[in-house]
Amino acid sequence: MTMKTIGYAAASAEAPLAPFHFDRRDLRANDVAIDILYSGVCHSDLHSARNDWGWSSYPLVPGHEIIGVVSAVGADVTRFKKGDRVGVGCMVDSCQKCDQCAKGEEQLCREGNTGTYNGQDRITGEATAGGYSKAIVVRQEFVLSVPEALDMSRAAPLLCAGITTYSPLKTWGVGPGSRVGVIGLGGLGHMAVKLAVGLGAHVTVLSRSPDKAADAKALGAHALLISTDETAMKSAGSGFDLIIDTVPVKHDLNLYTPLLDVDGTLVIVGQIGPMDEMSTTPLLLGRRRIAGSPIGGIAETQEMLDFCASKSIHPECETIRMDQINDAFDRMEKSDVRYRFVIDMASLTAEAA
Amino acid sequence: MTMKTIGYAAASAEAPLAPFHFDRRDLRANDVAIDILYSGVCHSDLHSARNDWGWSSYPLVPGHEIIGVVSAVGADVTRFKKGDRVGVGCMVDSCQKCDQCAKGEEQLCREGNTGTYNGQDRITGEATAGGYSKAIVVRQEFVLSVPEALDMSRAAPLLCAGITTYSPLKTWGVGPGSRVGVIGLGGLGHMAVKLAVGLGAHVTVLSRSPDKAADAKALGAHALLISTDETAMKSAGSGFDLIIDTVPVKHDLNLYTPLLDVDGTLVIVGQIGPMDEMSTTPLLLGRRRIAGSPIGGIAETQEMLDFCASKSIHPECETIRMDQINDAFDRMEKSDVRYRFVIDMASLTAEAA
Repeated sequence: MTMKTIGYAAASAEAPLAPFHFDRRDLRANDVAIDILYSGVCHSDLHSARNDWGWSSYPLVPGHEIIGVVSAVGADVTRFKKGDRVGVGCMVDSCQKCDQCAKGEEQLCREGNTGTYNGQDRITGEATAGGYSKAIVVRQEFVLSVPEALDMSRAAPLLCAGITTYSPLKTWGVGPGSRVGVIGLGGLGHMAVKLAVGLGAHVTVLSRSPDKAADAKALGAHALLISTDETAMKSAGSGFDLIIDTVPVKHDLNLYTPLLDVDGTLVIVGQIGPMDEMSTTPLLLGRRRIAGSPIGGIAETQEMLDFCASKSIHPECETIRMDQINDAFDRMEKSDVRYRFVIDMASLTAEAA
Repeated sequence: MTMKTIGYAAASAEAPLAPFHFDRRDLRANDVAIDILYSGVCHSDLHSARNDWGWSSYPLVPGHEIIGVVSAVGADVTRFKKGDRVGVGCMVDSCQKCDQCAKGEEQLCREGNTGTYNGQDRITGEATAGGYSKAIVVRQEFVLSVPEALDMSRAAPLLCAGITTYSPLKTWGVGPGSRVGVIGLGGLGHMAVKLAVGLGAHVTVLSRSPDKAADAKALGAHALLISTDETAMKSAGSGFDLIIDTVPVKHDLNLYTPLLDVDGTLVIVGQIGPMDEMSTTPLLLGRRRIAGSPIGGIAETQEMLDFCASKSIHPECETIRMDQINDAFDRMEKSDVRYRFVIDMASLTAEAA
């Protein structure tokens, strides 16, 4: 017996999100059913709803920053029980057999992981539907525990923005003494600052204008570097071990690569697509590196949640009602959010829809 | 009393190389004087002679792949004695005090290393002059020992082409089982193949056309991948741990980044300057990396020479007379050399010049 639920979906690339009735699958033996309480709003949701990457299927229910409470479990579920505080991030399945899955890097599964929305169920082939809804069913291996110390109303963005910035910090060994730069102070960037500060790094926000100084300081950053100040940029040369680039549009990396120290890395986590022409000169002269990084694996995501709980790190959230989502998309496009919208799913009822 | 010598110099960016009489400095206490027997011809020599990078000073005596025999030593020299077989590579000095020099990475000296030619002596400020000459004077810390097992007439290209490809192979941990790709089969590329094979890697040459198959095999490569064969390229996806890109002109990396496995790196050692627009998508989806790498440090260069001696690895050389250098430059521009020109300096006499 399938579970009826309600969410918000895009019917096409041109349509605004609107109420949508649909079914969640019957619980398989290792499935967890979750009542969704909060759903973060990621830039990818907007890109997917509008088919900016060309791989969207409709109707499309976005949302991959999900916080909720377990409502039921399948017969073989051992990790969760009814009432548990849980989260779901960007993926809900993977092959579970390849070398990457064996390493706990399900995000890099050789068969491709199964997206929380706009994916295909590995058993039935049905479209997956995301967190802009009242309920979801996910196999237990892809469900995270949300520690008591985390405020559920502010935890959702950790499941994408949090792990997307935490994972490169860990991959490139950031810790006390590390010199970390963060480009872009949005949903991802503000988490990169908080997490890098939490890991003990010296953190600098790179910004085109000085008006980000107060924001950077409020987030815990130690310094602000104005990228239009040539003198400051020159004296900051070779001063960073890791730069996290969260800018979600095509841009110029030549400004930033000379800031890396020998063997330093600029990690792209924002823009998926073309970058401007790049000079290789700073790379060759300083053995510098450019990399990309996706989300993290499930074990690393759990580690990140536990780390945030231990350090009282929460995203900065603006809570909205479900029916405000289209305005929120518009505001997000103008970077008019500090720093992440979170939908209070209690605002969505069958009557309201 | 300065030492008079003779070489070939460019008088300007437009002038062909021509005989040039000049002085080498008096021996300082830690200097080694070297009679040059062979001098390799690097693509950088051509770029520098023609001021392609905009930083050339004239008259300019190129050459940074130098093989010779010690003719005299300063009072404090302990590492070398008259008659020793020696080499000099791309640098002849560095600050010897910074963290990079302390790590043996003089090529990455914080003050910049002193180029073997087109550099400035750190004491007198005089222009340095390279290996297209009969003699050179170099402080002992920048002089390499050439093992007996190496044929001096074929060893010169190891000092630049060799170390430029050996260093990234070591930096990125290539050894038995590593899957290495090499793009471009010129002076650098053919050394990358030989060295990676010597280190036990499985080596694939990437080429636009199948006519490189015999060459690749002759150099020891295990496979040839035709980059214009879409089917072959697709099935080779995620199949490389390291790709060494030796192409010395602006080109498109998008063809190659999907070939890297998770956490794999494409290292640029050829092109110094602009690259085409690049898509970040393969980087993000596979946590792939792009890096640059210069030459190696002195200790690593010595290690490379010893490694080549132990494995009988020699560059493929075409020996030329000094007065053939301008033709050699022209042929090099057309990639008409397998794979490196080496000047037999015995062909240059004071009378001939």
